Formats: sequence, structure tokens, C-alpha cells
Amino acid sequence: MIDVCLLGTGGMMPLPGRFLTSLYLRKDGRAVLIDCGEGTQTAIRTAGLRFKCIDGVLITHFHADHVSGLPGLFLTLGNEGREEPLHIYGPAGLQRVVNALRVIVPELPYEIVCHEFEGARPDPFRLSGMSIQPFHADHGMPCFGYRISLSRSGKFDPVRAKQNGVPVKLWSRLQAGECAEGFTPNDVLGPDRRGLSILYSTDTRPVPAMTELGKDADLLILEGMFGEEDKLERALETHHMTMREAAEIACQCGAKSLWLTHFSPATPHPEEFQEAVASVFENTVIGIDGMNTVLRFVEED
Amino acid sequence: MIDVCLLGTGGMMPLPGRFLTSLYLRKDGRAVLIDCGEGTQTAIRTAGLRFKCIDGVLITHFHADHVSGLPGLFLTLGNEGREEPLHIYGPAGLQRVVNALRVIVPELPYEIVCHEFEGARPDPFRLSGMSIQPFHADHGMPCFGYRISLSRSGKFDPVRAKQNGVPVKLWSRLQAGECAEGFTPNDVLGPDRRGLSILYSTDTRPVPAMTELGKDADLLILEGMFGEEDKLERALETHHMTMREAAEIACQCGAKSLWLTHFSPATPHPEEFQEAVASVFENTVIGIDGMNTVLRFVEED
Repeated sequence: MIDVCLLGTGGMMPLPGRFLTSLYLRKDGRAVLIDCGEGTQTAIRTAGLRFKCIDGVLITHFHADHVSGLPGLFLTLGNEGREEPLHIYGPAGLQRVVNALRVIVPELPYEIVCHEFEGARPDPFRLSGMSIQPFHADHGMPCFGYRISLSRSGKFDPVRAKQNGVPVKLWSRLQAGECAEGFTPNDVLGPDRRGLSILYSTDTRPVPAMTELGKDADLLILEGMFGEEDKLERALETHHMTMREAAEIACQCGAKSLWLTHFSPATPHPEEFQEAVASVFENTVIGIDGMNTVLRFVEED
Repeated sequence: MIDVCLLGTGGMMPLPGRFLTSLYLRKDGRAVLIDCGEGTQTAIRTAGLRFKCIDGVLITHFHADHVSGLPGLFLTLGNEGREEPLHIYGPAGLQRVVNALRVIVPELPYEIVCHEFEGARPDPFRLSGMSIQPFHADHGMPCFGYRISLSRSGKFDPVRAKQNGVPVKLWSRLQAGECAEGFTPNDVLGPDRRGLSILYSTDTRPVPAMTELGKDADLLILEGMFGEEDKLERALETHHMTMREAAEIACQCGAKSLWLTHFSPATPHPEEFQEAVASVFENTVIGIDGMNTVLRFVEED
């Protein structure tokens, strides 16, 4: 189960009633933030969410509207008495950006650990119990999208356990994921079941990694910087996506649903494009600040 | 005439419904900002004020809640197509802080000019048609308060003009402040009249400069970080003021009115202290976000 809250939906600049785009993901009481622009800490409070459980922040890129809230977040976490490290992930140069922003919050009671991505396809990692796969976006500067996923092991299968000669006293340990006496969980479990996955990517042109990593996703969260059809040229120039392009990606992925976010400040009413986008991908939701959902494993027979 | 808008009233961290403490001052369509914490640009929009007319920002000190909104402000001014320089004033080290914050807004279409204060009493300067006198506050780190004032020349006095032998054809030019043919405005004007003045100081213990520069002020804007009487010790430790101390300063100044701001996040309802503070200085207003007034010259006979 993953709790998902779209803290804000704005691009470029925060507006009254529209925080900058940021996502809060929580599993078993631990949380990950994606991006942290100016005002994100207020958005977290507005949504009634907690700071203490945030293990880390995934940064897409270093434009101010995606990172300018970091100093305030650092300070607030410190004021809450945090002692455990805060992990930040992002493009090469992250340490330099964090060091620069810390000029105004030099003293903190906890460590900030920066992880800079390397290579054409950075290694996946785990954070807050979720598996995170970063991928290169196309924004004319280093920028990353993220797939966040939970795998789900197979059901316990007593027939299989017996066939494999697993002593009954080991069943519960193996079912819980342990290995024991030369047996592995695989010896007592059926085939892996469908897990959960979210693909998050803003500030980018469409890239093949989206359809690859977003395949069958439960939720795509993509930018809808421009709603008007005639803004494609502008989107190409500025390395952003139109809402239609995002909806086309959702179709190609076979995703369950699509949330649009990161709206241009010149688009005060993105909901005006709902019908047009839904004609491309039906299950499209025009994001609003504070929108949330709970993704749950699908029960299978 | 000076338009005054208290954009926010929060200290330490922004809260839903409470922006960080910042002041917007406008004279003849040009504006000065004092401090710019996270969210100040949203506070400006919420108050319906303009960005384009901001000539400069006066910084009190470099704690994050007073400067973390600068990168966002820089970006928004740039997105508005600003070309004229933005002037920033503050303690020594300002250039270093601004350079650090610009790591996330490296490209701007206008220049940022930093002015760092020097000496025990930095020189006054003019900005947006107002005279600004910075003074050292006591916050355990370099921190400044500001007096913002408008002087007002004397009334035109035709008797005096005649006595001084000023030709009638020069009267209007001298009255407008020009010098001509060896005559000065002083030759046609009566004694200076009462001007306008505002004293602004947060994040500080009381200092003598407040009562000196705040004498007869039209408006004092001081921090009321702590309302409870038993928080004096905490105020001493953290180099802040209690509301009572601020009210005592207003008494000593003979100020017309006092606005309190920069409330602790642990004080959700600072208005609860209104009665107690008004018993010290009657014309005390517990600040709320967006509060504004227009200061006008007093008409004299």
C-alpha cells in the first residue's frame, strides 16, 4: 500500500492556492518527497502530513521551482529535533547545490547525505521501503524522472512447499522472506504477484524510458505544462510536454490512471482541458493541490 | 504618502495562513521589500501587489526564514522581463549569500547589486524615494533594523520670498526644490514640516537605536516573538523580544502606533495577548498577514 499526495501542481512560480509541484509518497509510515520548491513545507502542513517520517527527497533537476524549498525544509526538520540523516537524490552537482543552499541554514542537528546519479541508467535503490528507479528525462539540462515500485511475492503454496520437501517448522520463516537450512522463500511461494508502480516525470519531453518503466503502471504523474494544442512548438522549445503528449504516453504504457501536474502559471484553469485530454486517455485527472489516493495491491485468486 | 503592507507575520517557519514576516513599502508607485523568506512572492500576490515596481530588498539578517524566498523572487522578476537592476541591502556577507542562492537561478536578465553595510552606524541611503537608515540590532549575529522616512519641506511663504528679494518668476522653481540665480528653496519656504517615519526591527533584543531612530515614529513594526510574560528568559537566550518589551519601546518612542509581527509558530493565536500589550502601549495592533495602511503627511496650519 502506498499513500500518494500531490502536494502542489504549479510550475515556474507558486501562486495563491497553487503550490509548486511536489509529491509525497508514504509506505508503512515512512515517506519520500519528490522535489521541494518554495512553499513545499507549507503544502505538507496544508495537506496534514508529517515531516518527521520523511526519509529522503528525490530531486528531478535544479531549477529553482523544484529545489528552492529545501533550505526551509532543512530548517523545519532541524527545529523538529531530527537526528537521523536526510537522504537527497538527484543529478550530478547535487552536493554543490545543497552546499550552496545550506549557506542560510548552516547549523543542523542531523546529516544531509547527497546521492548523485551516474551513468545512462542509474542503479535502482530502496528508500522508505520502496524501490526507486531513476531515469534520464529530456529538459535541456540534467533532469530525472522516477519509477517508484513495490514488488509482491507469490502466495504461500503448501503443495509446493511439500513438493520441495520443506519441513513444516520452516514454512512461516520462508514465507516471511527468510532463507533457512538451504531453503529459500521461492520453495514455498507461488509466482510473483502484481506489485504497485508509479511513474513520476515533469519538466521533460517524452522519452522512451517513460513507456518502458511506466508499463502497466498504477499511476503516472506527468507534467501538463501546456494545454492548448498550438503550444506544441513552445513545449519543444522549452523541453516540456503538452497535456496531449502526456495522455499519449499513458496510452502507450497501458497505465491505470494519469494525473497531470506542473501547470504553467499562464494556465489558471487547467481543468478546461479535461475533456480534450480524456479523449486521448480516458482515465486522466487534472491535478489539484492536495489530491491524494491510496494504491493497494490487487487481490488475486 | 507611504503605502505599508505587512505581507506576513510568521517567524521561523511559514504556516498555512501565515506567511513569513516581510514588509512591502510603496511610495509614488515604487516599492521596497524588507526581508524575503520562503513564500514571500506568494504573499505579494495574495496581497494583490506588484513585483515590477520593487526597486530593492532590505535584509535584516541571513537566517533562512528571512532570505529563503530570494531565489524565487529573483526568478519571478526575471520571468516578468525585468531589465533594471535589483538592489539588495544587508549585513556584511550579503554578496556571498546572494551568490550561493543564485546557484539555482544562475541566469537572470537583470543585474543584482548587493550593498553590504559597514561601520557602527551605516550611512543612510535613498531607495524608491524614501530615506533608509539601517541600524545594528542585537540578534547574536549581524542583524539590522531600518528606519524608513520621508522628510517634508516647509510651506511656501510669499512674505519670506519677498523679504529675501526673490523674483516672482523664480518662486515656483524654488518651491519645487530647485536652486536658481543664487537663491535656494530655503529662501521661499517656511520651516520644515513633520515628515513620515516607520521603524522596522525583528529578531533582536531591544537596542537604544530603536528609541533614538523611532522617536515620534508614525509606525513601529517590531517583533512579538513571545507573548507570555514568562518567556522573557527564552527571549534573552534566543535574542528575541517579548511583546511587552516591544510595547515598552513604543512608549519610549512616543510612537503613534505599533504593529507586532514575527510570531513564534508555537503561538497560533497572538491576538490573545492584545489586551495585555495594549495595557503597556494602547495603540498596539497584533499583526495579521496582509494588514495594510497608508501613512499620510499631517496637514498643518
